[in-house]
Amino acid sequence: MFEVSFITLFPEAFPGPLGVSILERARREGIWDWETRDLREHGIGKHRNVDAPPTGGGAGMVIRPDVASEALDSLVITNKHIVYPSPRGVPFTQDMARDWAGSRGLVFLCGRFEGLDQRVIDAHGLEEVSVGDYVLAGGEVAAMAMVEAVVRLLPGVAGNAASLSEESFENGLLEHDQYTLPRQWGPYGTPDVLLSGDHKRIREWRLNSAKALTKERRPDLYAAYSEPHEFQAPETGDEHD
Amino acid sequence: MFEVSFITLFPEAFPGPLGVSILERARREGIWDWETRDLREHGIGKHRNVDAPPTGGGAGMVIRPDVASEALDSLVITNKHIVYPSPRGVPFTQDMARDWAGSRGLVFLCGRFEGLDQRVIDAHGLEEVSVGDYVLAGGEVAAMAMVEAVVRLLPGVAGNAASLSEESFENGLLEHDQYTLPRQWGPYGTPDVLLSGDHKRIREWRLNSAKALTKERRPDLYAAYSEPHEFQAPETGDEHD
Repeated sequence: MFEVSFITLFPEAFPGPLGVSILERARREGIWDWETRDLREHGIGKHRNVDAPPTGGGAGMVIRPDVASEALDSLVITNKHIVYPSPRGVPFTQDMARDWAGSRGLVFLCGRFEGLDQRVIDAHGLEEVSVGDYVLAGGEVAAMAMVEAVVRLLPGVAGNAASLSEESFENGLLEHDQYTLPRQWGPYGTPDVLLSGDHKRIREWRLNSAKALTKERRPDLYAAYSEPHEFQAPETGDEHD
Repeated sequence: MFEVSFITLFPEAFPGPLGVSILERARREGIWDWETRDLREHGIGKHRNVDAPPTGGGAGMVIRPDVASEALDSLVITNKHIVYPSPRGVPFTQDMARDWAGSRGLVFLCGRFEGLDQRVIDAHGLEEVSVGDYVLAGGEVAAMAMVEAVVRLLPGVAGNAASLSEESFENGLLEHDQYTLPRQWGPYGTPDVLLSGDHKRIREWRLNSAKALTKERRPDLYAAYSEPHEFQAPETGDEHD
């Protein structure tokens, strides 16, 4: 079973979006499970303080290394990624989600305030990971996003392996435009090619749609996609879909 | 009051991380509020179907344009951003969060399955926005992340304007390393400069820490930071902090 632990000052924020749909079904089926650990339980003194002002001055409060360390030590951690969600971190990507899905589980230390003492990051080798270039009020929603991205890739969670292989980032492009019923919706029709039954033309149309969207919205991804792949493996035999 | 609406198949996923800490306090103070609208209520027929297979074939299901459009029409929307969270979208950034914080509110259409019919995106001018380069099980957690980033910037929500101006991305760099009590933690001390009381040296140390981290982890941000600012406003008088 894939185990996920959240060390947090706000256990009541969970499970939120992790408690619905395919993730909740997978949890009931024993594919994964989650738990929260209250950081406050490791706080200092009568008031269970977890933070103190930044050394050297400045706004806000910083989580103490001794408190965070004790919370981490209370968990048995082997072959798990220990993650500190932070806008300072390396960007979380679909490749990372696939990699993490092959581990035994994940531990998240969810920050609040101005951040976490650097010494506990160094001492525990925490992976500082960012879900995007924006600042949140705490690490909880970031941890949830990472868990959702990882758990849906565990075997048996998403219904359909084909569906996973066709989505954004799997071929270096954003996903093509989608259409469904009704064929005519008010003044809006459906591109003829999608109604043609010609699977080759449909594939071409979708690839062009994906390329055009990626080029317009994400020139960074499009540039990486367009680069010649110098170390590509040699082609072997016929092309398959 | 800043109003946030979530159109979703899983109202029970909310508020999750939006119901704690400074966001919940701000909601109680009347600075903002949130509501959910159940997409299923606009479903078709006895089974309230909201989706159908992709036209042209392929895995998964696509949300119908008529169903999504009716859900959007049921909301009064003026001077609000209408957002469809999707990995195909333009990347959400701290600049966008600041911009949105100046609007009247936000409406999120939270997807599930393979996506949303392109016609409803076009017809309603939905802003397709991505929280990062990874694929989630649904738009709910992405919407929560965007709301958390925006609401904490509303006046009166985060305690301290100084704290907001010192954080990651505000000056184009990731935030410097932080230290707090205890000064000596096991074998780990605190950088001497932070204990020196010399504010000029502390500022320099922090700027260098921020630069080094940004250069190592985010060469993309560092390159943008290092570029000469050709259209910079002329300096006027003395330097201020």
